[in-house]
Order: sequence, then C-alpha cells, then structure tokens
Amino acid sequence: MSIFPFTAIVGQEQMKLALVLNVINPTIGGVLIMGEKGTAKSTAVRALAELLPQMSIAKGCSFNCDPNGFLCTSCRDTLSDDGQLHEEKRRMRVVELPLGITEDRLVGSLDIEHAIKHGEKKFEPGILAEANRNFLYVDEVNLLEDHIVDLLLDAAAMGVNTVEREGVSFVHPARFILVGTMNPEEGDLRPQFLDRFGLCVRITSLQDKAARKEILKRRAAFDANPDAFLDQWEDEQKALAQDITNAQQKVRDIQFQDESLDKIVEITAALGLDGHRGDIVIMRTAQALAALRDNTSITAEDLRDAAQLALGHRMKRLPFEEIGQGTEKLRTALAGL
Amino acid sequence: MSIFPFTAIVGQEQMKLALVLNVINPTIGGVLIMGEKGTAKSTAVRALAELLPQMSIAKGCSFNCDPNGFLCTSCRDTLSDDGQLHEEKRRMRVVELPLGITEDRLVGSLDIEHAIKHGEKKFEPGILAEANRNFLYVDEVNLLEDHIVDLLLDAAAMGVNTVEREGVSFVHPARFILVGTMNPEEGDLRPQFLDRFGLCVRITSLQDKAARKEILKRRAAFDANPDAFLDQWEDEQKALAQDITNAQQKVRDIQFQDESLDKIVEITAALGLDGHRGDIVIMRTAQALAALRDNTSITAEDLRDAAQLALGHRMKRLPFEEIGQGTEKLRTALAGL
Amino acid sequence: MSIFPFTAIVGQEQMKLALVLNVINPTIGGVLIMGEKGTAKSTAVRALAELLPQMSIAKGCSFNCDPNGFLCTSCRDTLSDDGQLHEEKRRMRVVELPLGITEDRLVGSLDIEHAIKHGEKKFEPGILAEANRNFLYVDEVNLLEDHIVDLLLDAAAMGVNTVEREGVSFVHPARFILVGTMNPEEGDLRPQFLDRFGLCVRITSLQDKAARKEILKRRAAFDANPDAFLDQWEDEQKALAQDITNAQQKVRDIQFQDESLDKIVEITAALGLDGHRGDIVIMRTAQALAALRDNTSITAEDLRDAAQLALGHRMKRLPFEEIGQGTEKLRTALAGL
Amino acid sequence: MSIFPFTAIVGQEQMKLALVLNVINPTIGGVLIMGEKGTAKSTAVRALAELLPQMSIAKGCSFNCDPNGFLCTSCRDTLSDDGQLHEEKRRMRVVELPLGITEDRLVGSLDIEHAIKHGEKKFEPGILAEANRNFLYVDEVNLLEDHIVDLLLDAAAMGVNTVEREGVSFVHPARFILVGTMNPEEGDLRPQFLDRFGLCVRITSLQDKAARKEILKRRAAFDANPDAFLDQWEDEQKALAQDITNAQQKVRDIQFQDESLDKIVEITAALGLDGHRGDIVIMRTAQALAALRDNTSITAEDLRDAAQLALGHRMKRLPFEEIGQGTEKLRTALAGL
Amino acid sequence: MSIFPFTAIVGQEQMKLALVLNVINPTIGGVLIMGEKGTAKSTAVRALAELLPQMSIAKGCSFNCDPNGFLCTSCRDTLSDDGQLHEEKRRMRVVELPLGITEDRLVGSLDIEHAIKHGEKKFEPGILAEANRNFLYVDEVNLLEDHIVDLLLDAAAMGVNTVEREGVSFVHPARFILVGTMNPEEGDLRPQFLDRFGLCVRITSLQDKAARKEILKRRAAFDANPDAFLDQWEDEQKALAQDITNAQQKVRDIQFQDESLDKIVEITAALGLDGHRGDIVIMRTAQALAALRDNTSITAEDLRDAAQLALGHRMKRLPFEEIGQGTEKLRTALAGL
Amino acid sequence: MSIFPFTAIVGQEQMKLALVLNVINPTIGGVLIMGEKGTAKSTAVRALAELLPQMSIAKGCSFNCDPNGFLCTSCRDTLSDDGQLHEEKRRMRVVELPLGITEDRLVGSLDIEHAIKHGEKKFEPGILAEANRNFLYVDEVNLLEDHIVDLLLDAAAMGVNTVEREGVSFVHPARFILVGTMNPEEGDLRPQFLDRFGLCVRITSLQDKAARKEILKRRAAFDANPDAFLDQWEDEQKALAQDITNAQQKVRDIQFQDESLDKIVEITAALGLDGHRGDIVIMRTAQALAALRDNTSITAEDLRDAAQLALGHRMKRLPFEEIGQGTEKLRTALAGL
Repeated sequence: MSIFPFTAIVGQEQMKLALVLNVINPTIGGVLIMGEKGTAKSTAVRALAELLPQMSIAKGCSFNCDPNGFLCTSCRDTLSDDGQLHEEKRRMRVVELPLGITEDRLVGSLDIEHAIKHGEKKFEPGILAEANRNFLYVDEVNLLEDHIVDLLLDAAAMGVNTVEREGVSFVHPARFILVGTMNPEEGDLRPQFLDRFGLCVRITSLQDKAARKEILKRRAAFDANPDAFLDQWEDEQKALAQDITNAQQKVRDIQFQDESLDKIVEITAALGLDGHRGDIVIMRTAQALAALRDNTSITAEDLRDAAQLALGHRMKRLPFEEIGQGTEKLRTALAGL
Repeated sequence: MSIFPFTAIVGQEQMKLALVLNVINPTIGGVLIMGEKGTAKSTAVRALAELLPQMSIAKGCSFNCDPNGFLCTSCRDTLSDDGQLHEEKRRMRVVELPLGITEDRLVGSLDIEHAIKHGEKKFEPGILAEANRNFLYVDEVNLLEDHIVDLLLDAAAMGVNTVEREGVSFVHPARFILVGTMNPEEGDLRPQFLDRFGLCVRITSLQDKAARKEILKRRAAFDANPDAFLDQWEDEQKALAQDITNAQQKVRDIQFQDESLDKIVEITAALGLDGHRGDIVIMRTAQALAALRDNTSITAEDLRDAAQLALGHRMKRLPFEEIGQGTEKLRTALAGL
Repeated sequence: MSIFPFTAIVGQEQMKLALVLNVINPTIGGVLIMGEKGTAKSTAVRALAELLPQMSIAKGCSFNCDPNGFLCTSCRDTLSDDGQLHEEKRRMRVVELPLGITEDRLVGSLDIEHAIKHGEKKFEPGILAEANRNFLYVDEVNLLEDHIVDLLLDAAAMGVNTVEREGVSFVHPARFILVGTMNPEEGDLRPQFLDRFGLCVRITSLQDKAARKEILKRRAAFDANPDAFLDQWEDEQKALAQDITNAQQKVRDIQFQDESLDKIVEITAALGLDGHRGDIVIMRTAQALAALRDNTSITAEDLRDAAQLALGHRMKRLPFEEIGQGTEKLRTALAGL
Repeated sequence: MSIFPFTAIVGQEQMKLALVLNVINPTIGGVLIMGEKGTAKSTAVRALAELLPQMSIAKGCSFNCDPNGFLCTSCRDTLSDDGQLHEEKRRMRVVELPLGITEDRLVGSLDIEHAIKHGEKKFEPGILAEANRNFLYVDEVNLLEDHIVDLLLDAAAMGVNTVEREGVSFVHPARFILVGTMNPEEGDLRPQFLDRFGLCVRITSLQDKAARKEILKRRAAFDANPDAFLDQWEDEQKALAQDITNAQQKVRDIQFQDESLDKIVEITAALGLDGHRGDIVIMRTAQALAALRDNTSITAEDLRDAAQLALGHRMKRLPFEEIGQGTEKLRTALAGL
Repeated sequence: MSIFPFTAIVGQEQMKLALVLNVINPTIGGVLIMGEKGTAKSTAVRALAELLPQMSIAKGCSFNCDPNGFLCTSCRDTLSDDGQLHEEKRRMRVVELPLGITEDRLVGSLDIEHAIKHGEKKFEPGILAEANRNFLYVDEVNLLEDHIVDLLLDAAAMGVNTVEREGVSFVHPARFILVGTMNPEEGDLRPQFLDRFGLCVRITSLQDKAARKEILKRRAAFDANPDAFLDQWEDEQKALAQDITNAQQKVRDIQFQDESLDKIVEITAALGLDGHRGDIVIMRTAQALAALRDNTSITAEDLRDAAQLALGHRMKRLPFEEIGQGTEKLRTALAGL
Repeated sequence: MSIFPFTAIVGQEQMKLALVLNVINPTIGGVLIMGEKGTAKSTAVRALAELLPQMSIAKGCSFNCDPNGFLCTSCRDTLSDDGQLHEEKRRMRVVELPLGITEDRLVGSLDIEHAIKHGEKKFEPGILAEANRNFLYVDEVNLLEDHIVDLLLDAAAMGVNTVEREGVSFVHPARFILVGTMNPEEGDLRPQFLDRFGLCVRITSLQDKAARKEILKRRAAFDANPDAFLDQWEDEQKALAQDITNAQQKVRDIQFQDESLDKIVEITAALGLDGHRGDIVIMRTAQALAALRDNTSITAEDLRDAAQLALGHRMKRLPFEEIGQGTEKLRTALAGL
C-alpha cells in the first residue's frame, strides 16, 4: 500500500513544521491540530512516519526499547541474563488511540488467560507500550473521556509507564509524539489539558484555486501510478529526512543565550500566561528550529516562530472565545522580538 | 427466495446511478441515501448485488480476498506455504451493520474460546472482514454511536483493517461499498462524518400516479409468479451487468484533462467548500460516469452530474437548514459548466 | 386452562377482522392495535390462535418449518441426510416479546454451554425462531428500544432470519404475524416504524350498555362453567375456522383488475402518502377480504375496507395530532370509491 | 417470633376487608393500598396470613401446587411416574418483591451451576414461583421498573408462569394475591397498571384519640407479654378464620341476577369508565361479599360496597388530580343503588 | 489503638443520651444524627461501644447469636446436634455501611466459590449479619440508594434477616442499633424513611469558648499520653457502664400508667402526626429513660424528654422547611406536660 | 531518571512548607493544593519524597510496616512465628490515585485467582496499602466520585484499613500523607470533605520576570546536564533533609501553653467555624512549625502561620464565593495574635 509522500502535501506548512520539530525533540510535547474536516491531518502524520529513517531497537522488544536508553523491565531482564542486547531496525509507526478506549487497554493490564493457563502473572502491554518511540495519534481528542486524557498526558509528561497490578510491577518507556486533532466547533478541551500539548496549529483548507488544483493534480498522478509518483518525489523526501537526522544530532548542542531567556519571559509576562510550561516549550522549540535551520545559536526568528507555535492555545480566552482567537494579540506581542 | 430485479425498480434514478458508479470505482467512497420511509432503499442494494457477476476470490478465504490484490494475513500464509492460491467464484453480498454493534464485533477480536481450548490465539473476523468486496449497508447511520461511525469511516478510507490484540496481529483488506441511509427528520450527522461519504442522494416517493401504478403492477406480477417476472426482465438485467463490467475495465483509462481540473476547482471554490475531499470525489465520479457512458474522456455533462452527486451534502448550511437545502445554490453553480 | 372463545368476544370487529386477514395472508404485515387498557387485546389473539386448525410441520423442528416451504438449516440437513421430512401437527401459538429483550435473545445466539461441553458450536434459537408461523405479540411496542423494533421489523419484512456468529451460520424462516399494541397516550412510534405495520386498528371500550352487559353475562357464564360455555359456542367457532381455511386456499386466485390499481393509486396520491408500502398493503388486504367474503374478484367494498385498515396510521399528521386523527380525511377520500 | 393478631388491628376496616375478599376469591385481582407511612400495611398482611388455616399442597412441591388443581411441570412428572401425589399441609406466606428485582429473579431462570456440574439444564424458580398460593407483597409498587410491573401483572392475570430458556420449558401455576402499596405523594402509577389491580383502598392514620390510645395499649400489652395477648384474641381469630373458610366454600354458589348485571353496567357507564375490567371485578367482589356475609344472593349493599372497592382507582382523573379524589363522584353514583 | 473515652466527649448531650437509650432498649429503633461536619459523630459511637461490657454469644457464631435468644440457622443446627450451645464473650462492634453497597453484600448471598469447590451451597453472611447485636453506622444516610435504605429499615424493623437464594434458605437475627448521620444541607431523606428512625438529634459545634478550649485540652492530653488519659477517666467510664447495665435489667419492669398513654396521644394528636410509630417510640423511650434515671415508673419529665427525641423528625414540614425547624412548635406542645 | 531537586524549585513557599510540615507530623492530615495548571504541583511532591532519608521497614512487608509501630496482619503473623521482624530500608514513594478507581482497588480485595488455584483466600492489597507511610497524591480530587473520597478520608482519619471479605479479615496500617490538588475553576469540593484536609494552600504562577527567568534557567541547566545540576544543589538538599529529621524527633517534645490554646479558640470562635477539627489542626501544625524552626515552645508566629495554613478552606463562604476568598477576613483575625 503506497503512501502519499510527505513533501508532496500542498500547503499546511505550520502543521508540517510542528510535526517535524517534535521529531527533532520529542520533549516539546506533541502537537494539537485544530481544524476542519478533510484536511489530511492523519495522512500527513502517516506520511512523515514513512519518510523517517528506521530506528534501532532492542531485538524482539515489543516496546521499541532504545538499546542505549531507558529499558523496559523485560529488556533489563534480557540484559542481565545475556549480558547484552541485540539490535534490529524498525520503522516508526502511527499508533491510533480509539475513542472509547478503556484504562486497561491504554496503560496495559494483566494477561488473565496466561495467568490461568501457566500459573504466572504476565503483563499485557497497552497502547502506551505500542506508542513508545512512535506517533500516538488521537483523533478528536476533545471527545475522549477526561480520565483517559489525563492518563495519556501524564504518561506523555513522565515518559515512563509504570503498571502495578496484583503484585506484578512492570515499567516501560513511553516516549511518544502525541498528535491530537480537534474540530473547534465540536466542544472544547479543558484548559488543564490544552496546556499540556507542546504546540498547537490551526489548519484550514486552501482557498487558493491554483493550490487546490495542484492538490488534485498530484492526487490524480498518484492514483494513476503511485510508483512513478514516488520516484518523482524521492529526492525531496531524502533531503528532508537528512535535514531531520542532522537536526536530531545537533539539537543538544544549541546554546541558549541569557538574552533569549529574557525575551521569552518578557513575552509570556506581557501575555499574562498562567503557569510556566509555555516558557519551557518555547525554549525547546526554538532549539529545535535552530537545529533544523542549521543555525548554531538561536535567532530572533527562531524565538518568534517557536512562540507562535507554543502560545496559540495558551492565551487567556474570554467566554465564548475560541481557541486561537487571541492570535492577533499574540502576533502583536511577538512583533517586538 | 427470489429477489425483485434491479432494473425493474421504478424511478429513483439518482440512487441507482450512485450505487452503480460505486461498483465501477469503489474508491468514490460510498453513498449516503437520505429519504423517507418505504422507498425501497435496502431492496435496491440487494437487487444490485444480485445482478452483478460473481467475483473471483481466493479459495476458502473468509475475507473474499482478491487473489491478485492485497491479501489478508491468512492468504499470505497460504501463498507462502503452497506457492499459489486457488480461486473460486462468489457472489457479492449485502452485509448489514446492526445498530448497537460493538467495536469488537466491527473490527474483529480474539476468539477466546479457541484460545482456551487449543492454547493458541486466533483472530475472529468482524463485520469489516465480512464486508470486504461487498456492500456494507448501514440503515439510519445517524443513529450509530460516534466511535463506531468513526471506525467505520476510517476503515472505508484506508481499505485495510489492522487488528492487534494481545500479541496477535492480523491484517485484511476492507474495501467495501458503504451505503448509509438516514431520515433527515431524525437527527443529523456531524459534518465530519457527512464529508466522508463519497456521494449523497435524496430520494422521495413518487407522486406521479402512473409511476405509482406501475410499481403496484410490477409488484403484483412478481408476487403472483416470481419466476415469470424474472424471465421477463432478464435481458435488461444482463445488459446493465455487461455495461458495469465494461466500465470497470475501462475506468482506469479515462484521462483527466487539465481543463476539467480547472472546472472542479472553480466550482468548489465558488461554493466555499471546506477541505479537499469534494474535489477528489468529483474527479473520481466523473471518471466512472464517463466509463459507464462509454466516453473516452470526461465531458461537461459527466462533470456536472458528478458534482451534483458529490456536493449536495458538502454545502455549507445555515443553522436549521437541512442537508440538501442548498441544492438550488449548487444547481446555479453547476449551470455554468 | 380453558380459553374464552374468539367468536364470543363482544364487539371490536375491526380488530378481529384485521387479525383474521393476516392469518389469511401473512404478507399483509401484521396489525398495530391502538387502544385503551382493559380491552382484551391479548385475549383476542390467544383466542384466535386457539380457534385455528393445527398446521403441518416438519417433525421435531423447533422452528415450525413448513415441510413444503422454505426450510431452516437443520431441516435441510435432515432432508439431505434422510431423503425426506416426516410431518407432525402443531397448534399455532402466541409468542410474547418481553420488554427489555436483548438482541441475542431476539435473533438467537451461540449456545456457549454446548460449545464448552461438546467442543462444537451450536445455534441457540431466539424469539424470532419461536415465532415462525405463530403470532408474535408485542405489548406496548412503543416502549421497546429502537434497535429491537428495527430488528423485529426487518425480520418481519424479510421472512427469514440469518445469524452469523463466530463462524456458525444459521438460517431459518421467520414468518410470523406481528401484533403490536400501543396506548396512544404513552409516547409515540417513529413514522419509520409505524409504516411497517401492515394494518392498524383503534379500539375503545364499548359504551353501549347492552353490549357491556352482554360482556358481563358471557364472562359470568364462562366463569361458572367453562366447558358448557365452550360447547355453546362450538358451531360458531367451527364456522369461522372453516371460512379462514377456505380463504387461505383461495386468496392466491383472487385476480386484480387494472381498475382496482387505479383506485388505490388515486387514494394514496390524494392523501399525499409517503412511500409505496401503503399501496401494496391495500392490494394484499383487499385480496384477503375478497377471499374471506367468498368473492371471486375484488369489489369496491373490499378496497374501501382494506384502505380503511391500511391507511389510518400512514396519514400525514400535524404536530401533536395523534395517530388516527386523520380518520375523517381518510373517510372522505374513501367515500368516492 | 409472635405476630400481632389480625383481629387486634385497630381501624383500617376497608383494607382488612379488601384483603379478606381476595382470600375468598383470588381472581378478584389483588389490592392496591394507598396510604401514608406508619400505617401497618405490611403488618396487616402478615397477620392475615398467620390467621388462615394451613392449605393442602403436593408433598415436596416448591411451588405449593394444589394437588387437585393445575400442576407444575415437576408435579406432573411425579404424578405420571408415581400414579399419585402425596399431600402435606403448609401455611400461607407473605412473599416480598424487592425493589430492583431482575426479570430472571422474578420469572425464574436456568440454574447455571447445576447445568455445569451435572450436564443437564434445570429450572431455577423465581419469585413468581415462591408466590404461588401466597401473598405477593410489593411495597411502593410505583417505584418498580415498568417492565417488572408488566411481567408481574401479566402473571397475575394469567395465573400461570411459562418459562422457556435455551430449550428448557417449565410451567407452573402462579396464582397469588397481589398486594401493592404506594404513597400517592411519591410519583404515580400508569393507568395501564392501576387498572389491573382488582381493588384499591386508601388508608390514613387514625386521628381519633381514643383509637390511637387503644393502639398504644394493645401494642404495650403485646410487647409486655405476647403469649397472653394472643390467648386473649384467640376466639376472634378463630371466628374470622372460620368465616373465611365458609365463604371460600360458598362463593361459587352465589347466583348472579340479571338485575345486578344491569346495575353494574349502569354505574360504570354513568362514570364513563374505560375498558371492561371494572365491571368484572365488581361482579366477583360482590359475590365474595355475599359469601362472607352469608347471603345466598347478592344484595344492593354487596354491590355498592364492591363498587366502592373496585372503582376508586379506575375513575377518570383530571390532570394533577390524585387517585381517589373522584371518590365523591363515585359515592354519588353509588347512592342510587 | 487507644480510643478516646465516651465520657470525656465535651457537650453533645442529646446525641450521647439517644445512643445510650438505644443500648438500653434496642427496639426504640436507632438514632438519626443530623449535623455539621467535624462534630465527632462516629467517634462517639465507637467510644460508646468501647465502654460497654462484653456480651455473651454462642461460641463460634459469626452472627453474635444470643445463646438464650432467637438463634440463627447455624446455631439451631449446632443446638440440635450437640444438645447445647457453648458461650463466649465478645465486645460490641461498630459496623460501617459503605456507600454504594450492593444488595447481596447487605443481606448476604451464596458463596459461589464454596459451591463450585465443594459442590454444596453455603450462605455468605452480609453486613446485616455482621451487624447483629452491634451498632450499624451509616454515614450520610441520605446518599444511600433508596432500595438499600429500604432493605436496611425493613431488617431493622423485623429484627430478622431471611435469605432465600437458589434453594438455600438461611435465617439469622439482625437486631442492631442503627445510627445514621446526615448533613441537612445535602439533600433530604424521604418522609417514609425518616419515620422509621426511632430518635433524631441535631448537633452543632460548640460556640462556647471555654468548651472549645476544653475539647482542645483533652485532645492534647490524649495525644500526648493516651494511657494516662484513659486512667484519669476510668471511674466515669465504669460508672456509666454500670448505669446502662442496671437500666437494661430494669427496663422491662417499668410500668406504663394509663395517664401516660393519654398524654402521648394528646401530644401526637395536637401535632397532627401521620401514622402511629411516633406514639410507640415515645412509649419505649420514656421507659428507657425511667430505667436509666432509676425511676420505678414514668415521670412527666421522662415523657417530655422522650417526645423531644422521638418527634423532631416526625413533624409535618412546609416546603423548604428543614427537618427540625418545627422544634419550636414541638416545645410548645410539650410545655404542657 | 533524575528528579529535579526540591530545594531548586523557585517560589511556591507555602506549598513547600505545608508538605514539609506533614512529613514532620503526618496526623496534621494532608494538604489540599488549589491552583492553576502548570505549577509543578506533582513535581514538588516527587522531589520532596526523593529528598527524604530512607525509612526502616519490616523486611518483605508490602505495606511498609514500621517494625516498631502498628503492624499489619501479615507482620503480626511473622512476628509470632519467628519471634522477631527483620528490617530493611526503603525510600518514601508517591502513590497516585487514578481517577475512576474502584472501591476494591482502593481498599483491597480478595485475590480470586489465588483462591481458585490454591483453595485458600488471600488478601490483595489496594492503593491504601501501597500508600502506607508514603505520599498519596490525588490529582483533581474534586473529580473523584463521592464514595471514593469518603473511603479515602475515612482511612486517612483512622490510620488503619480493615477489610473483611467472605470470611477473610485483614488489617493494615494506612498512615499516609494525603496530597490533593484541585483547580477551583472546575467544580467544588463538598464542605464535608474540604474540612478533612489538614492544610490548604493556594498557588499561582509567578508573575515576577526575574523569578520566571530563574525557573527557565534552572530547567535549562537541568535539561542540559542533570547530574551537574544535582551536584550543585546537593548541600541545600542535605540541609533541608537534616532539618526535617531533627524536627521529626523533636516535635513530640514541643509543649503547648495554656495561653496558646486560648488564642486558638479565640480565632476560631471569632471566625464562627463549624466543628472542632480546625482547632486541632492549628495545634498540631504549630507544633510542627516550632520543631522545624528549632523553637522549644510555640511562638505567636508559629500560631499565626499554622492558622493561615489550617483555616483558609474552613472559612464560611457565601454562595458563589470561591474557597480562599475569605483570606482577607482571616488575615485580619490573625493580625491580633
């Protein structure tokens, strides 16, 4: 099943950028995509996963453990038994969180069947386990039940999932890039939750006729002959993949000048933001942007673009004001940078 | 149990056309039939399935796998074990989605009984598996629970159903023609979902006395002697079946002129449609129409008819405006083609 | 337990006629009885079942299969194993549909216990199976959950129940006479569902003192000595049973003149009815009436009486107008026949 | 545990009479007691059960089968196996229907445990089985769920409970005296259900000081020395028990004059009652009254008292009018008798 | 875990008296404590249980059966098998009724596990069994579900719990002192239920500074050295315990003069109380008071105090009037005694 | 996984103090933290747990039993079997209470699996067991179901959890420091529950730019090199840990002067507080403060600070007044100390 190439997606630059930045530094905390129907949100995430190089994982680990990172209970056992972990390559996946998911299915549970048949308790991994080092895609996140969103964002914040059930304790890394979508016309997200998404972008369908036609043309070409179309875009795909890989290696070396910190605090104070998460997200996003743009240190543009992505959903809103309506105020605040 | 012939159904030309076009190109994305009670919607779908020639499937496959297409996990195993797949013929079926269906029953689940008795996990196919290469008929789609509609339309969009449960991973094709009905007087469908039906037709009962009488007459004749009635309509049935088969073979060769793309974009821009799905559906529907009409390329009439079927449910609506009330505006927009 | 004789029921002629016509031609589609409490609705149905002659069924079949009709999976197996089906006689029963019934109990399910103990899946028949060739009595049909009514009316329309569960497929005939009651003061039935009942009668308690006294007298006599009372009514009972049997044999031979079709269409067009089911029901009811009245062809009176029974619940209603309030308009429309 | 004697209950004559009449002729259909808290409703029923002579039942039958009446499936088997049924004596009981009861617990269900352990299906009797030939006491009947009341009243009307579950069919008599209580200030009972209680009495606490003091005195005496108190009332108890036994034997011989039927119909017609159940209940209640009063035929007083008990809850009510508020109108209508 | 002594509790004399009177005569019917948070309600009950002498129970009986009283099914078996019951001593306990309790857990159920493993049905005692001869403490009784309160008060009234499940019948005494608390600001209790609590007291926190300081001082002393504190209060504790024991032995000998009955009836008639339970409770409470005060017969003061405790929650209330607001009217009515 | 040091947290002094005081004297009763999103509440609790010295526990006890304190049933068995309890060291943990937790999971339940397999009942510890001698962190405590909060606060008040299920009785200590958070904008907590939290603090994000910048700087430094950052703060961490340990040993020796009690009562009387819990909490908190500040007896400042922490959530509120809005009134009342 051929997948439409990420770089051939017309428009929606903010969304594509936010996704790429999270790949560069997953501690940014995910992306909330707000937008209308039919705007290829899930297509874009799948396409980005397809473009990225395979990653190295501990062989046979069902949690995608990074052999050189924090290990799951099972990999730790293997390591202490065998003295080493073998590696294999696996492609990043897009794991979808179904609406109506239960807590057990999300965080994992005991495998009752195994317990009954073999007389020993075994951990049954949940969606959080599947999601480790993958994208976790949550369509219409505002329709999820509160306690599920809560568990989800807690895991996203901690990067670890610890499950204790009837004497069985299991720990595994749960570092994923959370991508949530919501249609602002269909209910709202509690401010508590909004704040815990790193970035937020708003997408609308393109109204420009040339762009719309280009979409149709590319889709028609892809429908007619997927392989030929993929060949045509191969260079662009490889170039972006390389840029991302480079930025991943470079992002930890980006220095943060004192002056940049001043600017961040100035913006968030001017906007009267609650809490401090916004400040930290701007900092991390600016680092990722600098790395992607191959800057050695952070520029005013990096800061401005980072703030734009990080603050839209953190602005205080009047009653009945939709998320993102404060954008004008935000743009003014950023203009001075 | 004899089935009333498709070609003997009086009136409802738009509905019949929309169904046939989806048979020619299933990626159009199904039909939403809006209409009153007692208008033979389910009869028509069953009748169309009866009329179509049998299809070739992988022998013994419970998913109707096309031996030359994307294969289910089980057929892949057979192919790698035996080196080949035997074929058999099967008629297309109409699979009904019951209201109140659970997620497990829709996407499939583990066969617990088999696991307990044989000590091995086995995939239990759901409705999506039954529906592969068949019609999936959902009566009163607006009464389904949201998360079920969601799963349904996701599967319809992807054409594949992947189920992972407790370590068992199963993939099977799930390419079906989705036919939903709804009574516009009984609740609404969220715009998110409306947009994901390819075509939409509105049917009403015939008010013309001659036509009503004709319906009664044909029904009386069929009731009195079904076999004689079927004989009488055999030629018409065969002719339509042949037209559909021809169009299926021809549809991939229909070229799309640049000028047609311009026209599509012009219409959807003029109507201020959200998203880009409408554009793509018009394109695919026009191709199917051209193939059915035995045109070698797309005509203005094909485009107009395709837009008529594809856009009715995608028009922006004022509050309290019913789906389809924008038809006048749509007709004006199409008049210029 | 002696049952009060059908022919000794005082008054309620429309209800009794509608029940009898459905016995003559079950494809008429059942009766909806609207009426007050204490009007012996269920008594009447039970009494009619008691009066009818025993029917011939395939020996041992728990679905009452007609040995010469469409057979259930089990009878088909017997037929192919033994080369023939033995017959036995059984009386028609009144099967009641409990409020709060589950889908599994209605359509049938897998017999889990049998599967666990004998290692083979077995179909556990539901109420639809019990109901085959019997009356299915649904008290207060408007209090049933929507998806149950839906399944019920689907089965009534198809005459067949097909159940597929975990690889077991079972088909059995489900031809029953559906009798629903509702108190119009307690909620309404969706028009979708109303339309699918063949006939509708409205009953009220008798206000005539002589009739009320007659009811008391007959009841007192029956209470005092049931056997003597039954003897007294035996001739009337036998006569009606014979009339029904004769009509059943004759109904397929009743011809339908072109002129009658014209009249039906004229009426339904004049009343602006939605859908075409009303037309077809009038046709079938008129045939049954002619057969019962020993006419060789349909008279104007048959048509008028049939329309009266078939259209009361299909009239368009203004908001807050109760079912049946359009009766006056209906009577005017029928006057011209 | 000594029980306060029925004849020592101060006041509440209507309630006590209604209970006694139902014991004489259980087909009257039970009593609905409407009244305030603290009025010893349940005490009275228990006290009446204690007073009645033991009845003869089929030995070992858990349904209290009358050896000379309609037999349960199990007694029928015993009878056909052994050729006879042994008898034993048992006292009438008061079976309470718990709020929140399930359908299975009410009508009976399969004994799953027995099925698993012994490989054969067995019927597990429900409350309706326990209630056979006993009182079935339902406190606050208006708080029961609708479908439970429905099942209950159906069983009360039929006198038989037939259960079919997974191939097991069990029939047992379910003739009980239904006693329901409700506080008219706490919700209402649907007219459908009200009508199916035979009689209805309204009780209030006594305001007369002498009577209240008498209640205290008797209670104090009973508390101080129950046995002495019971001795003191023994004669009254025995006398009432004998009266009831006599009336039970005599009630079937009470003749019904034509003139009495005329009077009943006149009353119910004058009051414009719906349905015919009221007429029949008056008839049966008047017979029981005549038998209790040792009349050989029905007197005007019997009729008037019967109508008083039978019609209070069957009067048409204006909105917001409480049950029983039409009593004045009723009394006027009865005055002419 | 040392428990703060009952006699060291500062203030709340009405509550403490009501609890003690119920210990003297449990048929008074429990106490409903209405009051604010933080007023040591549960502390007081636990402290009273600690203070009381141990009681004699049938050895090994899990229902605390009084060897000389009404016995549970199991003790009856032991008695008939062994010819005698051995005794042991056990302290009274405070059993708490958890909110959200199920009916099975309250009244007892079948021990499924035992049935499966040993092939015989066994009764699994519920909370009512644990509560026999103990305090049953229900915090926030107004938040319990109606059918649970109903079962609870029925058991309290009967003093016996009879459970019949699937052929197992078990009877055990269920005589407990019911103590319910409710915060009048959080919902109400239905009058039906209110009336079935014997006594009702209203408590508020002390506003007197000296008393508040005394509370703190005693708590500080107890926190610092519990054992020393207990020693200090030992005499007071023993004295109260002895008074209670004496009163228990004497209460049955307290005579009730005719004049006292007149006074009770006069009060309740003057207040227009519904039902007769109030009268009986005053009678029993006055007896307990006389016994506690070492009177040989009932005094006017005993009657007045008893009425005060028994009638507060039985006064008729206007809409929006809280329980107990009629106290003034009550005091006036009692002044004349 | 390195944890950000407690002493490096910028600002939020009240919250940090309240947590530390509860560590010094856990009978204070926990902290309710009210505040906005993104204010590092859970980070602070985890950081404090990390800072504290390991505690001595009974070896192998899954309840963290203090070998010299109240023992769980299991440790008691070990002690009586072996004559002694071995000790081991364990770090304090932060146990999180998931929203949607069941009662069984909270208080513990029977281990059904163990019972089935080994034929003996075993207690399965719940969250309350895990929480013993740990922090129990409840995010958004106002979203918990009422009966769970109730059980939680009961256990917190008693310090012991007793579970009786089907004949198994298990007792274990449940002394934990309860930390609840709530966002005052999202629903309220019932006064009953509010009162049972010992202390309450309100936190807001820092608006001071220098402080915000300091937060960012420390976070950036920690992100860049966690180990170096931890080294840098090691001295401060050790100093606080030592202060806490000293205070724990000293707190029981802090004397309470009569004059201090007078002051407490004066404040609470002036504020018209309900109940007496506030008085006791001030007393215990002032003792802990004196111990932390190395005072030998309680100062006016200790009292004032204690009252500030203990009374904010106990002030009477007008309708629509938020918790804590009475702070001004409180400050005035405390000014006189």
